[in-house]
Amino acid sequence: MSARGSELAEQAVGGDRRALARLLTEIENRTPTSEQALRVLYPRAGKAHLVGVTGAPGSGKSMLVGALVRTARAAGRPVGVLAIDPSSPITGGAILGDRVRMQEHASDRDVFIRSMASRGHTGGLATSSVAAAAVLDAVGFPLVFIETVGSGQSEVEVAAIADTTVVVQAPEMGDEVQAIKAGLLEVADLVVVNKGDRPGAQRAAAQLRAMLTVGAQHDRAAGDRPRPKRPEVLLVTALTGDGVPELLAALDRRHAAESSAADGAGSPARLARARAQLSGILGDRLRERLGDGAHRAETEKVLAAIAAHELDPYSAADRLLDALGVRE
Amino acid sequence: MSARGSELAEQAVGGDRRALARLLTEIENRTPTSEQALRVLYPRAGKAHLVGVTGAPGSGKSMLVGALVRTARAAGRPVGVLAIDPSSPITGGAILGDRVRMQEHASDRDVFIRSMASRGHTGGLATSSVAAAAVLDAVGFPLVFIETVGSGQSEVEVAAIADTTVVVQAPEMGDEVQAIKAGLLEVADLVVVNKGDRPGAQRAAAQLRAMLTVGAQHDRAAGDRPRPKRPEVLLVTALTGDGVPELLAALDRRHAAESSAADGAGSPARLARARAQLSGILGDRLRERLGDGAHRAETEKVLAAIAAHELDPYSAADRLLDALGVRE
Repeated sequence: MSARGSELAEQAVGGDRRALARLLTEIENRTPTSEQALRVLYPRAGKAHLVGVTGAPGSGKSMLVGALVRTARAAGRPVGVLAIDPSSPITGGAILGDRVRMQEHASDRDVFIRSMASRGHTGGLATSSVAAAAVLDAVGFPLVFIETVGSGQSEVEVAAIADTTVVVQAPEMGDEVQAIKAGLLEVADLVVVNKGDRPGAQRAAAQLRAMLTVGAQHDRAAGDRPRPKRPEVLLVTALTGDGVPELLAALDRRHAAESSAADGAGSPARLARARAQLSGILGDRLRERLGDGAHRAETEKVLAAIAAHELDPYSAADRLLDALGVRE
Repeated sequence: MSARGSELAEQAVGGDRRALARLLTEIENRTPTSEQALRVLYPRAGKAHLVGVTGAPGSGKSMLVGALVRTARAAGRPVGVLAIDPSSPITGGAILGDRVRMQEHASDRDVFIRSMASRGHTGGLATSSVAAAAVLDAVGFPLVFIETVGSGQSEVEVAAIADTTVVVQAPEMGDEVQAIKAGLLEVADLVVVNKGDRPGAQRAAAQLRAMLTVGAQHDRAAGDRPRPKRPEVLLVTALTGDGVPELLAALDRRHAAESSAADGAGSPARLARARAQLSGILGDRLRERLGDGAHRAETEKVLAAIAAHELDPYSAADRLLDALGVRE
């Protein structure tokens, strides 16, 4: 294992922002260096408030996060932002918008904005996002926004692993339906109707409040998923900053309430993060072992046999688990 | 293992549509019954053309799939549709639209339309979609459309495991950017500009053609991802059916070319499907073994320790792999 990981970790904790940036690249690529760094940093994390921000395209998520960052900075609070960017599964490019946003705070070392792409590992988005958030937490950002760009399943999952999940809505007709389709409202702790100065914004907020009250009556657990919540609905205009201090205060109240609750380690969000990390790492470990010298030939033979429909995938999985020595 | 699985499989192969519907529910929920059925059905599959259809919300994917189904039916061809619905991670509800669409073909047993939700397994969407497609394939649908509702990472992955991936675009400004953001164009074999009768549609198609030519020059491999393709761009009006027969013919040509290529089993799409299934099943198996009698207490202890930041997730993963007996 590379000693580079603990070195980068020490530098990042010491306030070296370039080391921090490099470390997040390692995490994005799931390298051995990132593993070593996380082993060092993980015990230092667990204090930050991780706030997920999601919403349909065009709802103004990025602008809202920008407004929250400015408000927090005006109060002297350090802020980290992770923009989780499902964009480019192949070329893996970061979004121009984030570069632009970073420039606003280029000389402010208490703001750290970073976009993260998924590198094509199935289920990898949640694992890498949690790891990146733990790094920002460990190096001393007490408030971290995790903003998701897409509006699909993975993005909902990423938003759901935050301590607090904010779902952003624009007041336009049809947007409510979009959010329901994407399952967004089900993971919301706070719903923000953005563009609150537009006609219809008040009505949209009222409709959402009514809808969410009805939804909450259908409470039912499904597997280990959290049950639907009764989110507060806030009206905000990110462009002017109206309502943003109130939103930040609502976030702080939630965090204070969670933190004072009996046992922080047992909170559903923390357990969901633990599960996402563990599951991602177990998957990586399994893939590594199946792809390395001893098992590689067998794995490739099995994949070709599945692809040719000569072998069903369950028999294939059992054969590989046997080869790895996994006990019943 | 339940004998119910092979019974349902036999009934579905015999043309029993209610058995087929029940079987797909089992697959959605990843039950032991679905496993047994798939072990029976998998060797019968591998002949159908699986066509992924994706695009930004509002591009008219569903209407396009509807038009394709009508065109195929007019030629007497049986068609299956899987609408992959990332909507409701908690309540798992199907979309009203699919119910409406099914009614159009209610008396036609050679059309089978089904929406599938992800049940909260990370990475589960691709695994379940591939399994469901294999079932439709095995029971005799030679053409299966896999339509994704969202526009996030998982949806791109689902579209990408099809033999042929169609990305739908509306000609409105800004839509191209949306598709690039979502990484959609990178997985496209065919790009359809829908709403071809609107002003600007011709221009949008021309712009896309230009953009995709430039994109193809940046060819570069990233991991085991397919490299960017040079997709054909077609103009279609799903509402009137204009251009739909041409699209279906283009799909057939692609399938014929793929099928006559040396070794079908080795096609990237088939290997990607094999990998998605294997990886999903290995993950399920690992979760089952960690959650059952012998290992459950240890797993829960480890998760709580990660959540409390007393244990880093890598050490935790290694501890559990040791407990399971996984060899280096």
